[in-house]
Amino acid sequence: MSETAAAATTRLTARGLATRERIVTAAAQLMFERGVAGTSTPDVRDAAGVSSSQIYHYFADKGALTRAVIELQTTRIIGGQSELLSRLDSFAALRAWRDAIVGIQHDLQCQGGCPLATLSGELAEHDAAARAAIARSFTLWAEAIRNGLQHMIEHGVLREDADAHHLSLAILAALQGGLVLAQAQRNTEGLEAGLDAMIELVEHYATARK
Amino acid sequence: MSETAAAATTRLTARGLATRERIVTAAAQLMFERGVAGTSTPDVRDAAGVSSSQIYHYFADKGALTRAVIELQTTRIIGGQSELLSRLDSFAALRAWRDAIVGIQHDLQCQGGCPLATLSGELAEHDAAARAAIARSFTLWAEAIRNGLQHMIEHGVLREDADAHHLSLAILAALQGGLVLAQAQRNTEGLEAGLDAMIELVEHYATARK
Repeated sequence: MSETAAAATTRLTARGLATRERIVTAAAQLMFERGVAGTSTPDVRDAAGVSSSQIYHYFADKGALTRAVIELQTTRIIGGQSELLSRLDSFAALRAWRDAIVGIQHDLQCQGGCPLATLSGELAEHDAAARAAIARSFTLWAEAIRNGLQHMIEHGVLREDADAHHLSLAILAALQGGLVLAQAQRNTEGLEAGLDAMIELVEHYATARK
Repeated sequence: MSETAAAATTRLTARGLATRERIVTAAAQLMFERGVAGTSTPDVRDAAGVSSSQIYHYFADKGALTRAVIELQTTRIIGGQSELLSRLDSFAALRAWRDAIVGIQHDLQCQGGCPLATLSGELAEHDAAARAAIARSFTLWAEAIRNGLQHMIEHGVLREDADAHHLSLAILAALQGGLVLAQAQRNTEGLEAGLDAMIELVEHYATARK
């Protein structure tokens, strides 16, 4: 977002915020379905039911709108799943989180992949600001997973030699790759195998047999 | 590839095969750098140093050319790494393979991601034939990993209760997700964490302490 747009956001009225949110929500859906390149400003305008000038009022350019979409998807993933993600502090919670992710993929018929990874694949080599924003989102995501594991270590569920940082990155890698395989293969076998393997590895750090 | 194009391939002269290969190689590089949508037939024509009519002689349409690129990337990954992939039958081999993948990413400065996954992200929802081809490639890739693990089970390196099929899918998921994280974050930390975690899990199935 440009300085001007950022400053404008802080001054938005409730109605303005609602309009901005409608634009970003519509853009997120279109970019998820068609990619960033396949989503034009007129597409977003029509889907959001706003005027082009309203879009340009809130977003200096498509790059700014794209970064707002990255922000929305990050909030949805890390905020939206926070019920599960913020409590990844037991084996039961890890398994419930795994089941929720697999369930979401079944609901989507394994279409679309991870919204953040898909944006990354399209933008990483062409939009440095978008890439950096997505990188930060992945870091936040890994940290949310790490916090739960750290809690398990501190509460004696996992041994002290469990490396919460490395395990959280590994779990996020298995999740992301599982979503890549799910999208291509239209089934959750690889996703389940990846997440189950990571949970199995974490179980090896358990202080007690489960 | 259309029936006509497939039939034509079988009748190609050595010179024709070389021309076809030059076209596919150029298209693969462009599609890796710019995506499929960002790669036009004139781009491929100029990069390959051929005429448009030569391209259409070998490929009925862009879809056929795209599938030839998927085939080439599959051969490169499963054929090209076959020195490592076909011998993933020891812990030393697994670690050497892991190091080779991380090394390749360092050489590429973590740019581009996995060529197959990037194609999948762009094409899966819009080109059913391309998606199916990429799905087959991932299956072949997992099978190459599985063969090595199966060899380790048969030779008593891994216990009988190791599930080579699930472990191979999990390893491929960690690899794919690690590449997603590498591309976004421009470092191999997540890739290394994912692959190391999977090797650590496989080690838990070892019959002997290493």
